[in-house]
Amino acid sequence: MEARGLEALIVVGEGHVNVIRSYMTNGAHVTGGMVVKKRGAAPVMIVNAMETEEAAQSGLAVFSLYDLGYAELITEVDGDAAKAGALFFGRVLERFDVPAGKIGVYGEGAIHRYLELVKRVSEANPQYQFIGEDGMTIFDDAFQTKDADEILRLRSVAARTSQVLGMTWEYIASHRADGDRVVDTDGTPLTIGAVKRFVRRALLDHDLEDTDMIFAQGRDAGFPHSRGENETVLNTGEAIVFDLFPREIGGGYHHDCTRTWSISYAKPEIQAAYDLVMNAYEVAVDNFRPNMPAKAMQEAVQDYFEAHGHPTTRSKPGTTVGYVHSLGHGLGLEIHEKPGIGHLSKDKLQAGNVITIEPGLYYPDAGYGIRIEDTLIVTDSGELISLTDFHKELVIPLRG
Amino acid sequence: MEARGLEALIVVGEGHVNVIRSYMTNGAHVTGGMVVKKRGAAPVMIVNAMETEEAAQSGLAVFSLYDLGYAELITEVDGDAAKAGALFFGRVLERFDVPAGKIGVYGEGAIHRYLELVKRVSEANPQYQFIGEDGMTIFDDAFQTKDADEILRLRSVAARTSQVLGMTWEYIASHRADGDRVVDTDGTPLTIGAVKRFVRRALLDHDLEDTDMIFAQGRDAGFPHSRGENETVLNTGEAIVFDLFPREIGGGYHHDCTRTWSISYAKPEIQAAYDLVMNAYEVAVDNFRPNMPAKAMQEAVQDYFEAHGHPTTRSKPGTTVGYVHSLGHGLGLEIHEKPGIGHLSKDKLQAGNVITIEPGLYYPDAGYGIRIEDTLIVTDSGELISLTDFHKELVIPLRG
Repeated sequence: MEARGLEALIVVGEGHVNVIRSYMTNGAHVTGGMVVKKRGAAPVMIVNAMETEEAAQSGLAVFSLYDLGYAELITEVDGDAAKAGALFFGRVLERFDVPAGKIGVYGEGAIHRYLELVKRVSEANPQYQFIGEDGMTIFDDAFQTKDADEILRLRSVAARTSQVLGMTWEYIASHRADGDRVVDTDGTPLTIGAVKRFVRRALLDHDLEDTDMIFAQGRDAGFPHSRGENETVLNTGEAIVFDLFPREIGGGYHHDCTRTWSISYAKPEIQAAYDLVMNAYEVAVDNFRPNMPAKAMQEAVQDYFEAHGHPTTRSKPGTTVGYVHSLGHGLGLEIHEKPGIGHLSKDKLQAGNVITIEPGLYYPDAGYGIRIEDTLIVTDSGELISLTDFHKELVIPLRG
Repeated sequence: MEARGLEALIVVGEGHVNVIRSYMTNGAHVTGGMVVKKRGAAPVMIVNAMETEEAAQSGLAVFSLYDLGYAELITEVDGDAAKAGALFFGRVLERFDVPAGKIGVYGEGAIHRYLELVKRVSEANPQYQFIGEDGMTIFDDAFQTKDADEILRLRSVAARTSQVLGMTWEYIASHRADGDRVVDTDGTPLTIGAVKRFVRRALLDHDLEDTDMIFAQGRDAGFPHSRGENETVLNTGEAIVFDLFPREIGGGYHHDCTRTWSISYAKPEIQAAYDLVMNAYEVAVDNFRPNMPAKAMQEAVQDYFEAHGHPTTRSKPGTTVGYVHSLGHGLGLEIHEKPGIGHLSKDKLQAGNVITIEPGLYYPDAGYGIRIEDTLIVTDSGELISLTDFHKELVIPLRG
């Protein structure tokens, strides 16, 4: 905060998942209010009177709006809630002896409301300058290296997610082929919708929740962010991209991993592309050095794919075929954190990072896409170790 | 948009759930980009090249960043992504012939980033004024009356949520008492964690997802927003507040309902409070008239509770005992929409509204809280009809 010249920061926002608030409040389950942290002082929570009990679980000092004079303020301004809300920010800051100066405003919520609210708050409290932050924010910087407790939780989510990968593999393997179609013992075709339902249940049984997984086959798999259609029946010999990135239930730490599967057998073209992506994954890992620029890892992978004749976003900006995305990203409470591992990234890779490495090749018109992704940690001793504990075989043999 | 003087609006934001973007794009599963709607023209989507296929499912015209010259822009500004991003907003608006003037910025996301980004965008594109909106926004207004398709989906979510209420009742009823404790056939105590796990699975089986339900017993139930502790064992004769507000999987329409249960028997004090809250619910429904001010319904309920000796947020602002919250709220894609039904609300109740009615009484020091909540619709003919199809019995008899 000192480097940024902030006298205090305020965390705002609505909704049951607000990562920054959660981080500041030890995961307290509140749905509104604010956290105020004066520079050099412990943060405090200010919530609706209804939420004081839940807020107290944060271990922070908790105040209700009424403790801080909100009722009197409403009376002062003749019931004008908008005006009272704007003035309240200044009252709160003064109550906690925050000197005049810059106040950082952070959090997740309705952008349109806060653009307007912060304007009103600024007008009502001219002694303070309320500002946002973009780029590598104070929280990005705090989030990008994990402490021992966070690593423990990330390892646990990793182990459970890996188990779900394994259960899904076994679930599909328990089916049989009827011509090109994958069917169960009764002959009912296996759809992507059924697989996703199986996965969501398996996640719940491991105290995890899905955040919109990708399970896409054939041409759909050729678009990195296609989710897959529930009605699609699984076929043998088609590339299936399964990108699973659940989190602890109710908002919490994530895992992120992708496997590409082909049921019963692999077509030579898909096997060849798969082998290249596997090699690219190894290129990334082999190029890792502690404190390296993140972009150098992406460049090594781009070099590899380009040398094998595939376009990349570096050789052909905007390409939708070949290697079309970044190599990876940090993750934790958010699915996308710093460092970013793209060729324009200014971040570096350092001890305490938890990152994904996820090379891929995409050819929708040829009817396939391939991606392989693990979540990895950079240890204190500077090693890069995968937390994803599931094999990277391409072909699921059917035994139903 | 005309009333607000907006030449165009831009929907921004990250994350897999962004209600306004979802509303504008028929639920397309994109995780970024923007939607631009010029006044009088159809909205268009602008996404990362990776997301064009998923975006196309919106039925809108879709452009990638590169279609709109992002690569050239990056080159123009020597790779300064922040500068390019800011200039890009103006290029896009000009590309779609949006005249100089006010541009509304809407969406959900990282508030700190958009405070800063909108400042930079405004500086880079002085021909446009980029503004937010608070209070009854253009989307609040659009969301607060539902069309026939929305009502169908809300009815379906209501029916499924009601089934889960019933399954949960039966699940608890299948247990037996061991002294004061509720245990299964093996004698294992039934915990709130086990009930929540059961509920989440039952929701999934109905293609719904939990958004942080409340299942709180005894003193915890006396705080309206206490979630309940997973380790707590269910006891006979204690008030349990079960507030369930799931949504369609992956973000979609909600239902919202609360039941208060007491296992095996009810203490007279709890039964008496329960009866009052049931009456208050009837007072609310009986007072309904189409086009009434929403606050009049809350005032009728406050009159009722105050007449029976209970404090309310009107008679005693900031109270944490008695009737301590609003009577209800609209809901749909968001769990809290307009109209708000509090005594300071300026909204009215009208045909097409889907609202909750949820009176309650809270006495944590006496070890209980009570809340009863249905989701109701105001029909075209001006009737107020509950969508929650589950009885309001207090006592769950054990039959294990």
